[in-house]
Amino acid sequence: MSEECIENPERIQIDADSIKHQNQVNLKELINPNKGDNSALLILNQKIDIPKELFYKIWKLHDLKICADGAANRLYDYVKDDESIRTKYLPDYIIGDLDSLSEKVFNYYKEKNVVIIRQTTQYSTDFTKCVNLISLHFNSPKFHSLISNKNALQSNHGIELEEGIHTLYNSMTKSLVFSQVTPISLLALGGIGGRFDQTIHSITQLYTLSKEASYFKLCYITVTDLIFLINKNGTLIKYDPQFRNSCIGNCGLLPIGEATVINETRGLKWDVKNWPTSVVNGRVSSSNRFVGKECCYIDTKDDIILNIEIFVDKLINFL
Amino acid sequence: MSEECIENPERIQIDADSIKHQNQVNLKELINPNKGDNSALLILNQKIDIPKELFYKIWKLHDLKICADGAANRLYDYVKDDESIRTKYLPDYIIGDLDSLSEKVFNYYKEKNVVIIRQTTQYSTDFTKCVNLISLHFNSPKFHSLISNKNALQSNHGIELEEGIHTLYNSMTKSLVFSQVTPISLLALGGIGGRFDQTIHSITQLYTLSKEASYFKLCYITVTDLIFLINKNGTLIKYDPQFRNSCIGNCGLLPIGEATVINETRGLKWDVKNWPTSVVNGRVSSSNRFVGKECCYIDTKDDIILNIEIFVDKLINFL
Repeated sequence: MSEECIENPERIQIDADSIKHQNQVNLKELINPNKGDNSALLILNQKIDIPKELFYKIWKLHDLKICADGAANRLYDYVKDDESIRTKYLPDYIIGDLDSLSEKVFNYYKEKNVVIIRQTTQYSTDFTKCVNLISLHFNSPKFHSLISNKNALQSNHGIELEEGIHTLYNSMTKSLVFSQVTPISLLALGGIGGRFDQTIHSITQLYTLSKEASYFKLCYITVTDLIFLINKNGTLIKYDPQFRNSCIGNCGLLPIGEATVINETRGLKWDVKNWPTSVVNGRVSSSNRFVGKECCYIDTKDDIILNIEIFVDKLINFL
Repeated sequence: MSEECIENPERIQIDADSIKHQNQVNLKELINPNKGDNSALLILNQKIDIPKELFYKIWKLHDLKICADGAANRLYDYVKDDESIRTKYLPDYIIGDLDSLSEKVFNYYKEKNVVIIRQTTQYSTDFTKCVNLISLHFNSPKFHSLISNKNALQSNHGIELEEGIHTLYNSMTKSLVFSQVTPISLLALGGIGGRFDQTIHSITQLYTLSKEASYFKLCYITVTDLIFLINKNGTLIKYDPQFRNSCIGNCGLLPIGEATVINETRGLKWDVKNWPTSVVNGRVSSSNRFVGKECCYIDTKDDIILNIEIFVDKLINFL
């Protein structure tokens, strides 16, 4: 079949019921998790630059809050207006090799009984340490009995220093039936837009979690974008028309990692069919946008990365 | 051959003469171009966030300065301290559909005789318009005779409004023998770190220029990184030891676009041989660093993207 590209009007009706889709994403739930899911806000070590009102709202919408190592410094600095505010925004965990965590911030959060776990292994990143910890928190009674052991409080909460979290995770995950695990909505702040190899590392995590711990629904939020993975074989993306009009700008379908084919899109400004896409060949659907009134549909031959421009100043009105 | 990964000491001697390499990059020349090259500084439409002292120095080190559309607003705002400074930093060209250029800024630069070229086509990006213009500037007498035509000043400098630059470029490029074209060192500011689809679009340009206009040596500079393409089949990366010690941090070898194999590296903290690398499989050499005292060597099966962390506050002392 030959490739096609058509330009649509600014708004068109897409009949969601007529589309056979394997996957579904509700845009707003990327930030405001479905109440049936477990949810976690992961803060990575980069300056927090989203508006405070939005940050505080997102914080409250998530069950669990985790700082990756030096991200705790960023949180400490971000909420510095007022000690009474800082005391309200205590993460549940801080984890990493702790080399980038300042002594002042360590002592502050330790005194407030935040669980601070040192993991010294250099063979995994802070991101992986965090993700393993989040999964243990929601799925491992053994982990909870370990860290609630009062004697263990003296020594890294009973977690072996080098890679105790990975050992516990690997042991737990063997007996985990993924399809029976409650989904975890994971919103990550600070993964994109800093050092470029760290940005690309963050993108690899979208692919890795999708394959190795598919109960995670990972999305990165930046001051300009939401970035997440679209599984192959057809995904329906749903949104409220007002939310789309006020908070959403351009989008890009980004074949980072491998060339693929966009089998079909419905409801984009430039809809395509049988459209080969590749970074190497300079053929990427960027600066596109959603014109489906309430939904759009994306069907690709392989998993692909989607970024959606967000207007952070407007989001708060819809959460 | 089986894959290998070894951890090196913090500094090791690499014998550059013993390495057969097809390509060579001098790190400092990415910012301070070789005097034998033509050079251009391209400013894209994103807030300019590198230190002023560095920006002014980089400006002076480049023959040609171009603003992509709204980037002229960014330049105007960036140098606002003092009108006498603003008058010193006038770009040679502003080009784009000009939808994002403010009237005030348009009038300011027009009055200062900056060449402002409108190109309305939506089938190429501002980046492509700029790159075509840069090539015309250095290689096309016809282009110069067009824009120096005084009558043409009234009407877009004699350039056809929709896609005149592309037409001129395509016509010129047919007769261009790439191997005889003076290399153009192109440093681009503002291509990485904004909207994520635009960041990935910028990465596609590294591949595209390398194939379609290989006389360009394109490098992106951000407040944290230099980002450029390493051609396959072996590249020697040279640097002054003091420059490396003061200005350079971590690096990443990023197989954006396609999986490949790192045949060999010499002089990285974690050197590898026959090492398959892929974003999709989560196997990327990030948070690595240069430990070769004066050089390192990277040989990959396919072209690959390299990012090198830079300390922008230190760079100024080495330019």
